[in-house]
Amino acid sequence: MAIRLIDKYASSFVAENEYAAIQPMVTTAHEMLHAKSGLGNDYLGWLDLPRDYDKAEYARIKAAAAKIQKICDVFIVIGIGGSYLGARAVIEFLKSPLYNNLKKDTPDIYFSGCNISASHMQELLSICEGRDVCINVISKSGTTTEPAVAFRVFRELLEKKYGKEGARERIFVTTDRARGTLKGFADQVGYETFTVPDDVGGRFSVLTAVGLLPIAVSGVDTDALMVGAEAARVALVDPDLSKNDCYKYAALRNILLRKGKTTEILVGYEPFVGMLSEWWKQLFGESEGKDGKGIFPASVVFSTDLHSLGQYIQDGMRNLFETVISVKDTGATLEIPHDPDNIDGLNFLSGKDLGYVNSMAQQGTLFAHIDGGVPNIVLELKDRSAYSLGYMIYFFEKACAISGYMLGVNPFDQPGVEAYKKNMFALLG
Amino acid sequence: MAIRLIDKYASSFVAENEYAAIQPMVTTAHEMLHAKSGLGNDYLGWLDLPRDYDKAEYARIKAAAAKIQKICDVFIVIGIGGSYLGARAVIEFLKSPLYNNLKKDTPDIYFSGCNISASHMQELLSICEGRDVCINVISKSGTTTEPAVAFRVFRELLEKKYGKEGARERIFVTTDRARGTLKGFADQVGYETFTVPDDVGGRFSVLTAVGLLPIAVSGVDTDALMVGAEAARVALVDPDLSKNDCYKYAALRNILLRKGKTTEILVGYEPFVGMLSEWWKQLFGESEGKDGKGIFPASVVFSTDLHSLGQYIQDGMRNLFETVISVKDTGATLEIPHDPDNIDGLNFLSGKDLGYVNSMAQQGTLFAHIDGGVPNIVLELKDRSAYSLGYMIYFFEKACAISGYMLGVNPFDQPGVEAYKKNMFALLG
Repeated sequence: MAIRLIDKYASSFVAENEYAAIQPMVTTAHEMLHAKSGLGNDYLGWLDLPRDYDKAEYARIKAAAAKIQKICDVFIVIGIGGSYLGARAVIEFLKSPLYNNLKKDTPDIYFSGCNISASHMQELLSICEGRDVCINVISKSGTTTEPAVAFRVFRELLEKKYGKEGARERIFVTTDRARGTLKGFADQVGYETFTVPDDVGGRFSVLTAVGLLPIAVSGVDTDALMVGAEAARVALVDPDLSKNDCYKYAALRNILLRKGKTTEILVGYEPFVGMLSEWWKQLFGESEGKDGKGIFPASVVFSTDLHSLGQYIQDGMRNLFETVISVKDTGATLEIPHDPDNIDGLNFLSGKDLGYVNSMAQQGTLFAHIDGGVPNIVLELKDRSAYSLGYMIYFFEKACAISGYMLGVNPFDQPGVEAYKKNMFALLG
Repeated sequence: MAIRLIDKYASSFVAENEYAAIQPMVTTAHEMLHAKSGLGNDYLGWLDLPRDYDKAEYARIKAAAAKIQKICDVFIVIGIGGSYLGARAVIEFLKSPLYNNLKKDTPDIYFSGCNISASHMQELLSICEGRDVCINVISKSGTTTEPAVAFRVFRELLEKKYGKEGARERIFVTTDRARGTLKGFADQVGYETFTVPDDVGGRFSVLTAVGLLPIAVSGVDTDALMVGAEAARVALVDPDLSKNDCYKYAALRNILLRKGKTTEILVGYEPFVGMLSEWWKQLFGESEGKDGKGIFPASVVFSTDLHSLGQYIQDGMRNLFETVISVKDTGATLEIPHDPDNIDGLNFLSGKDLGYVNSMAQQGTLFAHIDGGVPNIVLELKDRSAYSLGYMIYFFEKACAISGYMLGVNPFDQPGVEAYKKNMFALLG
């Protein structure tokens, strides 16, 4: 198992009999999901995706990524929401949040079309100056404002720089299989296209072409990512809470919500977990935040944020619980140097690995926060590998579906996202 | 005025008489603060800092920054919490979140000692390879684990690369005026030192040497920053709510908290606001999150997060309010290109400025979210200038003090931050 749920730091807040009491609800949610009888059942393509994905398209994704790696210095990924967060989260988790600042033999990767900021766009254009560029526009309809505007800007850039013919080789389109103006236009011009499946919502789409093309360009082993997700698909099917950590996570968050813990803080101890938390926020926030319900998803990176939100978590309003992503083997070591002057009095740590200190900080924080009245769920991830991350992605997707059904919402729609757009278009005339 | 508070998007949630009802509490908090008669009154140095700051040290900061700009390619700033967030927030706000990726004539600036991550440290070391490096270690005591370990690593790097003599010219120490092992050691070796004032807590220290040295290295106009803060200091002294937007912000958040709005989301519409929100989270979370009280501080950057947390905000649990930082003039423009193919159907926007679309998105979102039951406070910032940001920093600091006194806490301590450290050291033996 790539993930192990440790519930002992929640045990003083949740009694054993509460698991038994909620088991029937978990079983019902499980059956609804697997029988595809629940709300939103048109959007369950993610459930068997790690087994059933389109192998021919997958091969084309890898070939396109290899080509992109060869012909450009800067790869611009245009998308918003689920067409942005998944790829960025995986790249930062497995490569680095400093990916673009590190020496490497893969292109820099920048995300555009995920805001309406002129300054951000100007900066991306200046970064592209004098460098070879490819783009991947990701939009099911092709009409979402943010990516559409960015696509206009970068298509113009490429056509000016390489001509229409040259630009054609550098533009990759991920969009609807058949419908939509973007698909029609791409086919007409001759861009290579990839598919946003009809039955996979944006926030569940990271393991489709939406996420996989940018991820592959970064040099991540997408095969291992898919194998990890498939392992989770096979492993996480027992409705029995005591045998299914994914369902146990879903159950625990609902138990805690029902006793007033209305905010969940996803905790990482490594900067590379930061963007994954943003992906997780969309997954859970957009799936459950409806009809006046849902846990508010927040996130921190410790120990950084122990020195900012730490005080609140320790001692503020008690409507919080934490879920800790604890990466057992980060793959990095750093020996703490000895200081003959011992200025800081830390020579008892000389020669120790920094990861050891980090794990003690984690242990110390767990004890402190449960003392402070904050239940903690620990998800121990085996290592920082593509396999384990694939497993975790599927783990969270399935936990989210089960949790949403237990909460009594449709976990697969997002009607509230339209409200600002409707107003914006009215204002724009 | 660099900031204008617009309260009309909260008016359906807060009646006029509520302002009158809470005015006496505001007046009392104001008097406590200015008479220095409240809890934490040893830590009010920030209150008159924009007038009373040490001019001789300020001149040394500018000279040191000029030297650092000249002799290094990479400037490593070592600090955590208040010794990290302020400088980074200002640099990203006024320069860019992509500062290190843009062409410029100032050094790259990386932050270290703000976590216990071996992978992050390894990456910073690889970034320094073959480049000239200076460091600024910021720690009042010199014994906080995270910055102390980072200082060991980078001091070793510099001494190996430049020798002890050479390293001495490249190490800048911001620490206690007189006490502490770091101050003693720095004086002995001959590092240039700057002061963390005794009466200014970490989260209020951005306009001291703590923040100003890294900020000056980035090329920000620190004079304008201080002048803006001084303008706020002079302007924001009237206890009358109707004449003091800073106090009105403090009052509004307390009114909303008392009617169950327990989470405040700070909203930006530009990526450059993102780190400022992290600074704001520490300021308010650490000042108010104690004794089981306090508003939970969260943040989003729109329109990015309208496609992730947007659904929750629109339609989830109704314990939220939003505070929007609306930057009126961002200084950047970008004309939306015309597309003869009109693939996205957006040709009615051709030739329009992207900032105009962003402001309509903002307007549309405000209407949508108040329709959804989320009160919105708008803080309209005149522009993206150092002057306006200095004003805003002081505005938030003073609002935080007033708000904390109204809440009934000591806004200037952080007893909860010690809990994890105590446990960690016990575990480390």
